[in-house]
Amino acid sequence: MTLPRTATTFAPPVMEARRWLQGVEFPPERPLINVSQAAPIDPPPEPLRQAIAETALALPSAHLYGPVLGLPELRAEVAAQFSAAYGGQIADSKVCITSGCNQAFCAAMMSLADEGDEVILPTPYYFNHKMWLDMMGVRTVALPSGQGLLPDPDLAQALITPQTRAIVLVTPNNPGGVEYPPELIAAFRDVARAAGIALIVDETYRDFHSQSGAPHDLFHDPDWSDTVIQLYSFSKAYRLTGHRVGALITSPERLSQVERFLDTVTICPNQLAQHAALWGMRNLGQWLSGERAEILDRRAAIEDGFPKLEEKGWKLLGVGAYFAYVQHPFRRSSAQLAQDLVKDAGILALPGTMFMPGDDPAGERQLRIAFANIDRGGITELFDRLAALAPRGVSS
Amino acid sequence: MTLPRTATTFAPPVMEARRWLQGVEFPPERPLINVSQAAPIDPPPEPLRQAIAETALALPSAHLYGPVLGLPELRAEVAAQFSAAYGGQIADSKVCITSGCNQAFCAAMMSLADEGDEVILPTPYYFNHKMWLDMMGVRTVALPSGQGLLPDPDLAQALITPQTRAIVLVTPNNPGGVEYPPELIAAFRDVARAAGIALIVDETYRDFHSQSGAPHDLFHDPDWSDTVIQLYSFSKAYRLTGHRVGALITSPERLSQVERFLDTVTICPNQLAQHAALWGMRNLGQWLSGERAEILDRRAAIEDGFPKLEEKGWKLLGVGAYFAYVQHPFRRSSAQLAQDLVKDAGILALPGTMFMPGDDPAGERQLRIAFANIDRGGITELFDRLAALAPRGVSS
Repeated sequence: MTLPRTATTFAPPVMEARRWLQGVEFPPERPLINVSQAAPIDPPPEPLRQAIAETALALPSAHLYGPVLGLPELRAEVAAQFSAAYGGQIADSKVCITSGCNQAFCAAMMSLADEGDEVILPTPYYFNHKMWLDMMGVRTVALPSGQGLLPDPDLAQALITPQTRAIVLVTPNNPGGVEYPPELIAAFRDVARAAGIALIVDETYRDFHSQSGAPHDLFHDPDWSDTVIQLYSFSKAYRLTGHRVGALITSPERLSQVERFLDTVTICPNQLAQHAALWGMRNLGQWLSGERAEILDRRAAIEDGFPKLEEKGWKLLGVGAYFAYVQHPFRRSSAQLAQDLVKDAGILALPGTMFMPGDDPAGERQLRIAFANIDRGGITELFDRLAALAPRGVSS
Repeated sequence: MTLPRTATTFAPPVMEARRWLQGVEFPPERPLINVSQAAPIDPPPEPLRQAIAETALALPSAHLYGPVLGLPELRAEVAAQFSAAYGGQIADSKVCITSGCNQAFCAAMMSLADEGDEVILPTPYYFNHKMWLDMMGVRTVALPSGQGLLPDPDLAQALITPQTRAIVLVTPNNPGGVEYPPELIAAFRDVARAAGIALIVDETYRDFHSQSGAPHDLFHDPDWSDTVIQLYSFSKAYRLTGHRVGALITSPERLSQVERFLDTVTICPNQLAQHAALWGMRNLGQWLSGERAEILDRRAAIEDGFPKLEEKGWKLLGVGAYFAYVQHPFRRSSAQLAQDLVKDAGILALPGTMFMPGDDPAGERQLRIAFANIDRGGITELFDRLAALAPRGVSS
């Protein structure tokens, strides 16, 4: 008897980490610092909440089924704003709205791969990508990232087989924080196109990129949609994590395939949430600039404060968008260290082992710090607690 | 090269049918009668919309990530109300909330089956069930329904092989409308339990069942969760189709498997929508009774009016909840007839071929009429238009 599909993968890391908190008390003078999940802890700004409330009261259609591929106005808004931001041509008919960006990834993969196919993921990877490939019966081919957590397109090319269907890039990266340079992204596109496979570019964190202007030039190419599939999330930009709205940008032909999956799994994205995202896109540009500035300041705080951890043997492997990805100085595997941190330091962070295949020991030395939820003061406190841990060499 | 998973199934029927409307004009004196989708056309009642608006303004957590398995208060409310309604024991820990009932089905199947497994669906089936099984690589084994559109447990038993993982019942049935008697449901449970497979009972339309009291006694059995998986939708009861909230009721062990799928596909159900469903369950019991009475009156209108169609050679195969399932008197396949009805009669209904495997010709004689959207007057008008169509014997 074979295993059901869910049994082919692991338990959700964020939920598993949350269970480590059970029964642990955090004294008032040292509250829990939760850097485990990439999630705003504040609700959307007041005007957006007001807009949601007004839509709920005044717009009957916001409560009823809508098109499988999403609200036409939101598809058009994404197409227009992204065309302008990337300096390319993205037609409305190439955009669909999904119930969050995870679902966009799942939908893209269902339109690309079948049992026994292969997909290349740079490591460390975003664990939900790995979980979906496992459940689909698709083999994840790990592409270990090199210096600065950057994946190498030549190495990727060498991993391509007749079963390979796609390469997945996440930029700015989760968990690594690193922003892939435009030339690197273009080189991956070239590798993918030459092999006749897809390049998936997950830009969930694009609104917090440290560079102004377009983060890549893929959309300059009029034929981009023969290879490129872009994914996006409205969750972080507008603090709509609980509303589940994302986007998938690809050819209309692929969207007609994606429609089969979306129709079957959720029928349509939440309508009120789509109106919220639309209102955000139309009205919160200025506010979002401020949010980005704040995140970039926190990133700077990470870089400013890290030297005191370096003295203790820590290394900053990558930082950007919502994440710092660090190497710890202890003998313990990060899987153990992360659980110890809850009790010993009042810190919840995810271990590198959650972002790596089991056969790659690199993850045992690594931790992801999702710093978007803590301000400069919180980052200082986080680093003080980490620096106070028993130093390298002690039985650790 | 294998086909990607989405290419193993068909295009979404409701969207395909909507495309038949393109370019067709409906004169004001004969507007379109749309009986294609099981969807309320009115928004939720004013107090529920008010509650959604107030929650959006006042409750920050309604905008942020929540637990993968859903809002604890909603899980508890479902457990309490369903325990009372069915006269059994359903613990909170056996309930999870999903992004609609389609997703509940997908999640259940992912926790049960793998490539090459088999699942038994009575025909006519709900097409999204078939689509998901196709995309999962699971073989649908059709169980043709007999007299009164009732499936036969003995026939089901004969179809079970070592690859069979589940039998799926939808009651009240979509598309057939028929309500399965409690003894029939229990007999299926016995067949499933004896074979060590699951019995999935999709009760999306339970709130519109014509019988008062529990529609089955499966939950009387303290061991129900070794076999039974119940699915539910909040969409129809509270007119929340655009919010995507459903429920899945099973053992905690299976829920820990289901959690992997839900986390990966959507992270959590829409939070505001869950609060809406919770408010509905707590406050709209009386209102829902009125909704049910109205639907039962429309069902009576179908039965009252059908004799004039019988004179023209039509047969009423099943009626209940939102649906009438009928046999037409024409030579054309229903696939052609349904498209002709748009132009010739201003009626949009789905053909039986959309609810049947391609090798079963029965669907060519059948049509589904989703009558929940039309009142008594609309039903009279619908039947008048159908009765006016060219009679049997003409080249049709």
